[in-house]
Amino acid sequence: MLNESIRYHHDQLHCDQVALEDIIKSVGTPVYIYSLPRTLSNLTRIQRAFAAVQPHIHYSAKANSNLAVLKTLVEAGIGIDVVSRGEIQRSLLAGARPANIVFAGVGKTADEIRYALEIGVGWFNVENVAELAFINATAKPFQKPRVALRLNPDIPAPTHRHIATGHKGAKFGLSIATVKDILSQRHTYSNVDIAGLHIHIGSQLHNTEATQQAIEIALDCIRPYPDIRTLNIGGGLAVAYSQDDPVPDWETFAAAVTPLLTGYDVILEPGRSIIADAGILAMTVLYTKEQATERFLITDASMAELIRPALYEAHHEIIPVRRESDRDESRYHIVGPICESADALGHDVPLPALQSGEYLAALTAGAYGMVMASNYNQRLRPPEVVVERDGKTWRIARQRETWDDLVRNDVVV
Amino acid sequence: MLNESIRYHHDQLHCDQVALEDIIKSVGTPVYIYSLPRTLSNLTRIQRAFAAVQPHIHYSAKANSNLAVLKTLVEAGIGIDVVSRGEIQRSLLAGARPANIVFAGVGKTADEIRYALEIGVGWFNVENVAELAFINATAKPFQKPRVALRLNPDIPAPTHRHIATGHKGAKFGLSIATVKDILSQRHTYSNVDIAGLHIHIGSQLHNTEATQQAIEIALDCIRPYPDIRTLNIGGGLAVAYSQDDPVPDWETFAAAVTPLLTGYDVILEPGRSIIADAGILAMTVLYTKEQATERFLITDASMAELIRPALYEAHHEIIPVRRESDRDESRYHIVGPICESADALGHDVPLPALQSGEYLAALTAGAYGMVMASNYNQRLRPPEVVVERDGKTWRIARQRETWDDLVRNDVVV
Repeated sequence: MLNESIRYHHDQLHCDQVALEDIIKSVGTPVYIYSLPRTLSNLTRIQRAFAAVQPHIHYSAKANSNLAVLKTLVEAGIGIDVVSRGEIQRSLLAGARPANIVFAGVGKTADEIRYALEIGVGWFNVENVAELAFINATAKPFQKPRVALRLNPDIPAPTHRHIATGHKGAKFGLSIATVKDILSQRHTYSNVDIAGLHIHIGSQLHNTEATQQAIEIALDCIRPYPDIRTLNIGGGLAVAYSQDDPVPDWETFAAAVTPLLTGYDVILEPGRSIIADAGILAMTVLYTKEQATERFLITDASMAELIRPALYEAHHEIIPVRRESDRDESRYHIVGPICESADALGHDVPLPALQSGEYLAALTAGAYGMVMASNYNQRLRPPEVVVERDGKTWRIARQRETWDDLVRNDVVV
Repeated sequence: MLNESIRYHHDQLHCDQVALEDIIKSVGTPVYIYSLPRTLSNLTRIQRAFAAVQPHIHYSAKANSNLAVLKTLVEAGIGIDVVSRGEIQRSLLAGARPANIVFAGVGKTADEIRYALEIGVGWFNVENVAELAFINATAKPFQKPRVALRLNPDIPAPTHRHIATGHKGAKFGLSIATVKDILSQRHTYSNVDIAGLHIHIGSQLHNTEATQQAIEIALDCIRPYPDIRTLNIGGGLAVAYSQDDPVPDWETFAAAVTPLLTGYDVILEPGRSIIADAGILAMTVLYTKEQATERFLITDASMAELIRPALYEAHHEIIPVRRESDRDESRYHIVGPICESADALGHDVPLPALQSGEYLAALTAGAYGMVMASNYNQRLRPPEVVVERDGKTWRIARQRETWDDLVRNDVVV
């Protein structure tokens, strides 16, 4: 969706004050482009919405771990929520202090836990009794790493089944009984500081009731332990992918949950809500095709660069980079070069008649885009460009892969 | 599924004569392991099934473009079917002669076509009139590259909608009318040799009728042109992913179609049928978990390494690397460390009680496994190991990625 940063100016699609065509002509397509001004204004809006509880915000790097994005957010004073050693490494490269890193994830390996202890991450969000025992056994007594127990509150989240995480049939978190059990034996985990609970019931939540319920359950668990003052309520703030996407706005969400949180240290882990609508995937039309009643635009972007439509049936608006209102509109399937029918970025997209060589942009592509890209069909992963905080200058933040990259790890005999 | 190469020996899972544990203990997990003996025996079985028409076989590299696999198949005398410049590059590295490379794909870029002409690929499978015009305009008259027109016969393929490709609502191929039209004006494409038709209506085809029909339609198109003698019937040979997967065997498939093809030069493009059941993804159990009535094994493999279950609801059998018959069986969800519910490799998998640190293998993972892997959650892509033709020795054919690889293309400022 268009917004204050991603918009037409004189019928040319812009990212802030930069015409997309300028970037495309220099860098080629496909290319991801992120607006750092929009990234920061999303952060500011979240900070304002939750101002009543002065949250510690940790950006969820799994949504988009581009170094320029991470660095911008770190410089804005927030922490990073990571789920792997690779994400810790990127956070450090972006200038994050280890103490501002929260290490989450249902399957941390022993090596990852040792590494995280070594560098001194701020929090472990713990999802398993065995994991807790291992952290406790591995940590030096003077380290006392802070631990938040991830509570699975057994609430079906109002979202897509692939991204719901808080019901009892899910792999995530610890059951209510297990959390209570661990808390009642806190003294046996003497090398760690069990200082909070973590709840994250899913992303793209379509109402606030489930989160409110989860918070109530969490508060009930920690009420007997007045020294436990931290509640990490995860992310989940929904992003609209089209005009008619009925998502609650963040202010409504915050207004519903902040009254429950007064007096607690609140951690928030937004990812998608900070970066999704700051990002675009720009592409070139390679071929047009009509088969029977269907019209296709075959583009140089594919499911290898953006898998969300194939994987989640996700919707991304696709619009022309140059708007020419005198052309008739038809409905097109926007498909990529990959040899399977799943390789479509959009169906029945209303567009003017475009020629081979013209450009399209898939919107709201900043989150779960590049981080999920593959080399399927031996395609090169695309570059990432950022428009800087000034809104005027842009630079390549990650280079397009090279043919050498594709065979770098192959052993040629 | 188990087979002559992937099987238990003294309750230890083997790839040919190599115990998986030997590889795992040396290389770590997750790791893809391919049996080259099984790869070659699959090829031999296809060659025998189609012996009546002495087909030219081109292995479809998009299924698995590991250099050791490609090299083995090239040395066995077959060609390669590619869909990108990256796959051409891998084929050449594996020793393929350019003349034995078929270049297919619905979205070839101008650069890719120029590159393919330069190195002199054996065939272009053409999917678009504009593509044909571009090849004709770009080829030097002395080159006369051979072209097969990809016919879309407008037949719904009996398979999953994601991998059906031969119906008129699909992006693939040229309509019957367009093919006839091009053929009637062949002389206007004077720099190319339009020497065949290509039909590929989908993969994992569950019966032979649709292919028979497609062949009939193709023959009808070329009947007026007795010098057109090549029919590329694509791939599509089905692979069983479990015992109760009702797929036609290749002999039945070949017996149904070869009588139609007598007197023609036949090209076959098998991919999955050569490599799928020669491959395994081995993993380690990181954690066990019970939530309410559900039991989970959290492994160090995920949808980042094998996305087929999440993307296609594909089934892969998952079995223990060490079989211990004295343990009770239960049903487990096999899930990975990635922070979304889509990250599951199997549901309700019957398994003995396993401990953290024990190994599992996902079977029939040789095709569309590693080629679709990503760095999602900033995970390292796994290594690929091959068991050599002797069935006794093994080697790393592609190294595990390193932490440096993850940031190689990032621009640090």
